[in-house]
Amino acid sequence: MRIALDAMGSDVGPTPLVEGAVMAAKRFDCKILLVGRRHSLGRLLRFYRYAGDKIEIVPCSQTVRMDANPRASLKLSDSSIAVATRLVAEGRADAMVSAGATGATKAHALLGLRRLEGIRREAIATLMPTSKKPCLILDVGANVDCKPRHLVDFAIMGSVYARTVLGRKNPRVGILSVGEEPSKGNALTLATYALLKQSHLNFIGNVEGRHLFKGKVDVLVCDGFVGNVVLKVCESVAKMILMGVKGAMKKNVLTMAGALTLLPGMRKFHKKVDHSEYGGAPLLGLNGVCIIAHGSSNAKAVMNAVRVAVESVDQDVNRHIREEIEAISAEIEQVASSQELVAVTE
Amino acid sequence: MRIALDAMGSDVGPTPLVEGAVMAAKRFDCKILLVGRRHSLGRLLRFYRYAGDKIEIVPCSQTVRMDANPRASLKLSDSSIAVATRLVAEGRADAMVSAGATGATKAHALLGLRRLEGIRREAIATLMPTSKKPCLILDVGANVDCKPRHLVDFAIMGSVYARTVLGRKNPRVGILSVGEEPSKGNALTLATYALLKQSHLNFIGNVEGRHLFKGKVDVLVCDGFVGNVVLKVCESVAKMILMGVKGAMKKNVLTMAGALTLLPGMRKFHKKVDHSEYGGAPLLGLNGVCIIAHGSSNAKAVMNAVRVAVESVDQDVNRHIREEIEAISAEIEQVASSQELVAVTE
Repeated sequence: MRIALDAMGSDVGPTPLVEGAVMAAKRFDCKILLVGRRHSLGRLLRFYRYAGDKIEIVPCSQTVRMDANPRASLKLSDSSIAVATRLVAEGRADAMVSAGATGATKAHALLGLRRLEGIRREAIATLMPTSKKPCLILDVGANVDCKPRHLVDFAIMGSVYARTVLGRKNPRVGILSVGEEPSKGNALTLATYALLKQSHLNFIGNVEGRHLFKGKVDVLVCDGFVGNVVLKVCESVAKMILMGVKGAMKKNVLTMAGALTLLPGMRKFHKKVDHSEYGGAPLLGLNGVCIIAHGSSNAKAVMNAVRVAVESVDQDVNRHIREEIEAISAEIEQVASSQELVAVTE
Repeated sequence: MRIALDAMGSDVGPTPLVEGAVMAAKRFDCKILLVGRRHSLGRLLRFYRYAGDKIEIVPCSQTVRMDANPRASLKLSDSSIAVATRLVAEGRADAMVSAGATGATKAHALLGLRRLEGIRREAIATLMPTSKKPCLILDVGANVDCKPRHLVDFAIMGSVYARTVLGRKNPRVGILSVGEEPSKGNALTLATYALLKQSHLNFIGNVEGRHLFKGKVDVLVCDGFVGNVVLKVCESVAKMILMGVKGAMKKNVLTMAGALTLLPGMRKFHKKVDHSEYGGAPLLGLNGVCIIAHGSSNAKAVMNAVRVAVESVDQDVNRHIREEIEAISAEIEQVASSQELVAVTE
């Protein structure tokens, strides 16, 4: 198996990407195509004393900046992300991994790989910690305006991913909404509810924001605007609270000593919410595997992103998605067409 | 000034409502009309040794259950919330306060008081703690499907409330979105951005979820679906983290001792995020002042909800809203009508 790794896109330069590639090459059964400037990457490989044949440098001359406009970035046809995408599109790699600008990665992947047949919208899926197992939430930013059928696509893709890559049996699927009752929600979630109820997915209904971390579902669907806001608000609340605790810690020597005794437990908790443990977020719904890693990924996060790519290819996620899409489209056809009728006559 | 207090609607019975009324009567320059069953309320007033003339019981025979269907609750015309609403509608009270079921309170208030002229949608506004001053976020649940003009109404009402009741000079207004740049957002926020830019409000642009607690704005607008989800997710994250810290605390005697030294500081932090400090959430946009308190409000929260009602009446919030609506409607007219044209021709 061959994984194309965009080695130039990152908040902090290529170092953690190359170190992560070395760690992944030693651990997983795959070859890594390191896309970037030959000179810098070669030097870093020597620095990490890698002399094996499981890493190959694929040179390119351009880099997409982290603040690049996604559409404008498409013109950089010899950028690391463009070359990595082309490797997958031409069958020379089985998957791609990038920690570059999310918008640019999405734009290149969508143009280069195209959507899977039957999929209306791709989605970025990410794992959220809960009090039980982590929950896959999607979409967290690929599409800010969604229709009910798009959320059904997300439910199908999320369910397949949870079953094949995360190993959840019969994954429970929920809709993020303002109340648990079927009658609670906005126009989008209410219509999605009606569709998912018809499908053979293990749909358990709405999940309220206040129950997000109870671990009631394996897959939670929402539009990319809501998902992105929720994801970022979570980070923000966590940061504010930890700052509050730190403030309490700093008050005097006694409280600081108290805080120190808590550290090992806190660290264990931090590990649970640390994104580098989960690796990357899959961009689901394309003809090819594309894993988006955090721009500030360290080597471990990069290694885990490669692991996610390897598992997605191993489990043939896209074939399963195609099969499910076909089956479920037939199941929900009647309700979906009556919805479209309503939309037209309104 | 007379405040009608729905004394029957609460998760925990009338006790905290009566105790809160007694505290408010002693502290604020207002008369409180305590709406509920005469016998129970009289007994509670005697229990709290209140013998003054600033509290009057207004009897009623029905109670709206906390899980009541809002529309069905409208039939209970002698319920505490119906009677409290009528007192305001008929000018026998200046404001109403309820800790009952939010949906039912909203339904009664909307039907009984009607919308302010020029307001398209009412909104529930709530205060969120930030690292600086609390930020007023609206809507957090009155309307799950919104149009750009509704969000403009929210911006106007929030700005007036922040200026008059919260005492913020020239309140900064932002839109909750997925990025800070004007180009980031969904169809709703992008169109709202274009409208608010035309107004004389102190509009500072988009606020990203990750900057929610930086205190960059005094007023943050979003549709009621997003606002409600964000509000509940915040509670949920905070709960999960504190559970994590507690788990760390319980590990052994040493860490428990450590945790105890932190408690005073933690308590101070907790006070910052404690809803009972802020009292109730105003339901803005109606012909009359309506304050919604948390269903689990304690006496202090009830007292603070009455304080918010008194200040809203004192500051004549609704007159200011009417004036601003008129001024801003003229300012944004051109952009708004071109938006509607787009919507029609699409």
